[in-house]
Amino acid sequence: MAQSILSRAHAHSPSTSPATWREALEATKGVPDSFELLKVLVFKPRTAKNVAPVPVIVIAREETETNSTALGKKLNLKEMRLATEDLLVEVFGVNKDGISPLSLTAENFPKVLTVLDGSLASAAGPFAVHANSDKETVFLHGQEIVGYLRSLEVTDTKITEVDFVALKADATANAPLKDAIPAQAKTATTSRKEDAKIEGAVQIAVGIQKELDFPGWYTNVLIKSDMLDYYSVSGCYILKPWSYSIWEAIQQWFDGEIKEMGVENAYFPLFVSAKVLEKEKDHVEGFAPEVAWVTRAGNTELEEPIAIRPTSETVMYPYYAKWIQSHRDLPLRLNQWNSVVRWEFKNPQPFLRTREFLWQEGHTAHLTKEGAGEEVLQILELYRRVYEELLAVPVIPGIKSEKEKFAGGLYTTTLEGFISTTGRGIQAATSHCLGQNFSKMFNIVVEDPNAGTGENASKIFVWQNSWGLSTRTIGVMVMVHGDNQGLVLPPRVASIQVIIVPCGVNAKTSDEMRKRVPEECDALAKKLKKAGIKAKADLRDGYTPGYKFNDWELKGVPIRLEIGPADLEKQQTVAVRRDTGAKTPLKMATAVEDVKQLLETIQSDMYNKAKATYNSRVKIVTEWKDFVPTLDSKCVVIMPWCEIEACEDDIKERSGRVPAGEQVDERAPSAGAKSLAFPLDQTKYPKIEHGKTKCPACGENAKRWMLFGRSY
Amino acid sequence: MAQSILSRAHAHSPSTSPATWREALEATKGVPDSFELLKVLVFKPRTAKNVAPVPVIVIAREETETNSTALGKKLNLKEMRLATEDLLVEVFGVNKDGISPLSLTAENFPKVLTVLDGSLASAAGPFAVHANSDKETVFLHGQEIVGYLRSLEVTDTKITEVDFVALKADATANAPLKDAIPAQAKTATTSRKEDAKIEGAVQIAVGIQKELDFPGWYTNVLIKSDMLDYYSVSGCYILKPWSYSIWEAIQQWFDGEIKEMGVENAYFPLFVSAKVLEKEKDHVEGFAPEVAWVTRAGNTELEEPIAIRPTSETVMYPYYAKWIQSHRDLPLRLNQWNSVVRWEFKNPQPFLRTREFLWQEGHTAHLTKEGAGEEVLQILELYRRVYEELLAVPVIPGIKSEKEKFAGGLYTTTLEGFISTTGRGIQAATSHCLGQNFSKMFNIVVEDPNAGTGENASKIFVWQNSWGLSTRTIGVMVMVHGDNQGLVLPPRVASIQVIIVPCGVNAKTSDEMRKRVPEECDALAKKLKKAGIKAKADLRDGYTPGYKFNDWELKGVPIRLEIGPADLEKQQTVAVRRDTGAKTPLKMATAVEDVKQLLETIQSDMYNKAKATYNSRVKIVTEWKDFVPTLDSKCVVIMPWCEIEACEDDIKERSGRVPAGEQVDERAPSAGAKSLAFPLDQTKYPKIEHGKTKCPACGENAKRWMLFGRSY
Repeated sequence: MAQSILSRAHAHSPSTSPATWREALEATKGVPDSFELLKVLVFKPRTAKNVAPVPVIVIAREETETNSTALGKKLNLKEMRLATEDLLVEVFGVNKDGISPLSLTAENFPKVLTVLDGSLASAAGPFAVHANSDKETVFLHGQEIVGYLRSLEVTDTKITEVDFVALKADATANAPLKDAIPAQAKTATTSRKEDAKIEGAVQIAVGIQKELDFPGWYTNVLIKSDMLDYYSVSGCYILKPWSYSIWEAIQQWFDGEIKEMGVENAYFPLFVSAKVLEKEKDHVEGFAPEVAWVTRAGNTELEEPIAIRPTSETVMYPYYAKWIQSHRDLPLRLNQWNSVVRWEFKNPQPFLRTREFLWQEGHTAHLTKEGAGEEVLQILELYRRVYEELLAVPVIPGIKSEKEKFAGGLYTTTLEGFISTTGRGIQAATSHCLGQNFSKMFNIVVEDPNAGTGENASKIFVWQNSWGLSTRTIGVMVMVHGDNQGLVLPPRVASIQVIIVPCGVNAKTSDEMRKRVPEECDALAKKLKKAGIKAKADLRDGYTPGYKFNDWELKGVPIRLEIGPADLEKQQTVAVRRDTGAKTPLKMATAVEDVKQLLETIQSDMYNKAKATYNSRVKIVTEWKDFVPTLDSKCVVIMPWCEIEACEDDIKERSGRVPAGEQVDERAPSAGAKSLAFPLDQTKYPKIEHGKTKCPACGENAKRWMLFGRSY
Repeated sequence: MAQSILSRAHAHSPSTSPATWREALEATKGVPDSFELLKVLVFKPRTAKNVAPVPVIVIAREETETNSTALGKKLNLKEMRLATEDLLVEVFGVNKDGISPLSLTAENFPKVLTVLDGSLASAAGPFAVHANSDKETVFLHGQEIVGYLRSLEVTDTKITEVDFVALKADATANAPLKDAIPAQAKTATTSRKEDAKIEGAVQIAVGIQKELDFPGWYTNVLIKSDMLDYYSVSGCYILKPWSYSIWEAIQQWFDGEIKEMGVENAYFPLFVSAKVLEKEKDHVEGFAPEVAWVTRAGNTELEEPIAIRPTSETVMYPYYAKWIQSHRDLPLRLNQWNSVVRWEFKNPQPFLRTREFLWQEGHTAHLTKEGAGEEVLQILELYRRVYEELLAVPVIPGIKSEKEKFAGGLYTTTLEGFISTTGRGIQAATSHCLGQNFSKMFNIVVEDPNAGTGENASKIFVWQNSWGLSTRTIGVMVMVHGDNQGLVLPPRVASIQVIIVPCGVNAKTSDEMRKRVPEECDALAKKLKKAGIKAKADLRDGYTPGYKFNDWELKGVPIRLEIGPADLEKQQTVAVRRDTGAKTPLKMATAVEDVKQLLETIQSDMYNKAKATYNSRVKIVTEWKDFVPTLDSKCVVIMPWCEIEACEDDIKERSGRVPAGEQVDERAPSAGAKSLAFPLDQTKYPKIEHGKTKCPACGENAKRWMLFGRSY
């Protein structure tokens, strides 16, 4: 039945909102003169941890107000939130711009709860219904829609009809629900007229406020700024050029620095045999639940399953044992740029927690502990520079507690970042000293060059390090700098640093000026590029300056230069900063130098602003009573700590209750505070007096200052 | 039992030959004063195509001459060849430097044929026996070895004892067998004294002659030059820095060129859902038998299996349909640097046929056929420049026949390389125009910008291309330029272009000169590096100049500069070219300029030499009688061709018999000739007169000149 309906579809240009849909339809031949749009929303209610939530699909008239909180109450479901794109693709095989009653099939209908607007059956119609695509529409009468849905009903699963008008009346009578409506739903119900007020707003606004629904904002900003797209395999994402170019900038810089240190790049296989992987039970135990196994090739079952690397210790170290034959082969320092797979079953988050991710992994072997230790810190310093100098993201370098260090390693150094919107810490990169644990397991051994030969000869197990930096960098950068207008890119990683937009051309503009404005934009772009600035003139036809402004703001380009007839007369261009919105006219004659300077100013201002925020949110706590309130005020805690593991567990538990005022989102990790790092620089805090300074959590003697916080 | 024997092992420095093994043992404490080395060789006999060969493991005294041809005759086995490292690892779990009787286990014993030197049981001993490692040895008496092996015997599988002395006498009586002994076996039996004649020869000679056993030479040169190591998952290899740096050089150049064209890099996931992959049955049919399937994550069976991409058409194009909404979004040009997996069951060959390989894949969409066609050739030209200008490998650009083109594409352009040692063609890179086939399958469509709107509006399915270049480049370069001394690297991709070796220092050298020689080497390296030349001074202690010469020759460094006391007196350095061996003294004062010039000369000489060889082996054939003899003389054929597919099949069949004089190696592909390419430049050959010029194969009218050849 769906097939025969779909065959009546009208193709049209793509639609990403009610407004653009209606526009697209009005421009399409053969479309009825008058019609209503059909609204389809999918919600995911919150459930207990071990219960799979049943998605709720709401099919309603466009004008019907579908209040999700009131609906949730009626259906006895908690915290209905708009479903992620991931879920839509998984359940219905289409995204939010293509979903329709026709996305329901005999297969998925029993797995969801279908809610139907009671006023639909009697409506005059016809209704515009997405033909499972944002580019195709069929026109159906209310009765046809109801009929189709009824055809899917089975004994156990029926449609739920809801009278939304009555529902609204009830809700209004009880409480003001404005804030309870998810921001995304509000956008979806915004009428076309309102959209039109801000030119192009529907297409390019982030649509969700960073402060109100941070995970929703994050997802939206990534998709709308063209960094990322969702993919049909859950937990995997497409890195589009706008984000991949940032990864390339990081790669280029870091790769140059490690080569300077003597590290060489190599490539080890994607696969590990079960035998080799399982040989190292201790280390792999942590990864085992997340390992993806290949068991079949074509139609042939493999004799034994082969794993996809979750990390490459067991891939590499058997060969290190073979290659390292003498102290002369040390240090051995290899790095690879690759992807690894960790099949997490937790809710995925683009860049932060994905089933496949890009990273570099360095694996080195040294003759001495000192040699290894020196490198661990050199690498940590390079990671710090990636964050602070390239991404303008402040981090605190430190050392992990015994509990939080890399399993099987000797000690782990770390950079701890901070997401001020949620007040959570985030582990940004780690550089591990593995000690001799792995070299003993893999028999990576040389003769001691200083111990003589013969009777005095002795063996040394090599000292190893491993260190990794992943595309998580990009996620942290977006979270720290982005705002409600979209991304804000630090100049040093922006693939376009300066966008030049012609403007001020109107009906009164002379033909000569009409020609000259874009020419001058192009000439300035060329001049800037020649000076090494990544500049581009946006000379696209058919788009207004306002559209272009918003488009490039959403994408986070650091500087916009506007050139109009009035500017040309004054021999100037107006520079607009993305980070502050500040406008400054620049003389054309000195534009290149001025822009160069401005880029540097933006880079350091962005860093300084984020740094000031981070600083203001690291609170010294010396009494336990202040610990949880400090976390609740979206801060992290620095406190003198006893370094006892039981105390660490206790702190996590005692701080783990849901804080007042913070919305619980299932995508956010636990509310219990973890130890983040002993800051390398302990001199910033009062001196710990042995036997006098106590740990505020347990009262034992404190040893070092430790950063605690809720974290990702 | 093996475990208890192994527990008696002596650890020592690694050994890669009988000589180094004996040396290592002699330097180890607690080792018997006198012992014999045990020799263990593994052969793989040739069998009919569908019969799995049974490996033959020969366990003998070091001094016993184990003639493989005579042994093969005795055992009634054909063409016993030394087994590849791959096979050793697969069957015994160790490589050739660690294999021993102890590598035989209850599990693998029944799967191999064990041949025992008859003189072993009665030998005095003790024997040094590898403890399944090149770094550990146990000492066993002959009777112990025999006892261990007998303990593994089962009803169906017994040890075969052979009297090698009698065998040799028989063989000598019948024929001179010198040439029949594989070169590798000869090396293995070379006595320690002979090894010592050429300093370091055991460790660094390629060991197998390129002309006599090409596949064996190829594998050896890759391993000994430190480009590659075998890996525990069959068909996968480790790219060590010496080869990976060549890939980086190719990447850097090509990436810059395509970005200049407007191509952007992105990253799409490793995985494709079964649904999406199988949706495109026509295209995927060719890949289906080689697709690796993930069916399990941790201990959880996936609901549906997920494929690892064999190529990314089905990964990407559903999103192209989503992203391309208007002709303004065209051209869309994305590229990614990634690895793909094709689980081939044919014999793997490093770089040429591997189960995982690195490549770039470009996927673009255009408004017009002309736009797409122009790009296809632009990319082919970039690929040509990678081969000819970077790798100094000549190629013939052309177009594939209908039979050989990319399945589902419109036409395929190609570069055809040539391996003169085998006389085989090799497909070097392809750039496909996919036409509208994929855009129709995936509904990638825009409105025609030239057709007006409303009644006149019409849709255009976009025109697509895809193009790829893989690490096969490296294999082709090695095969074309390498010689019996090892690799020969073209300067433009060598990560070390110039190696500076101090020499001529002997007992009579003054202390001052002893200090000055390495200082001058270092100073010259710095000077060269400052001028942008990749130079390195090899100041390693404890290695003789001769060792260093051989080491860097094996690794293919284009220029060696020698500096000794005599050179310093003359204010000169002696330059030795890797490609020709020619020596030239260079004045120190002009060394930088001279070296720069010499690198350019080497680059062009290497290309010209390979080009002249290729040219001399492309033979015009106009009569069928010359076709097979031309192939048999290690040439490829250019002939006027009818372009009829049945004729192509017929040519393959008629040329498919095993040619006289060529050794059949199972790693080599079929002997039937395929069409390789219509050369783009047809003007080099006599004009084809329609209706007059006939196809020599079938007598029909010829249309264009086609290159035919045996190929990889």
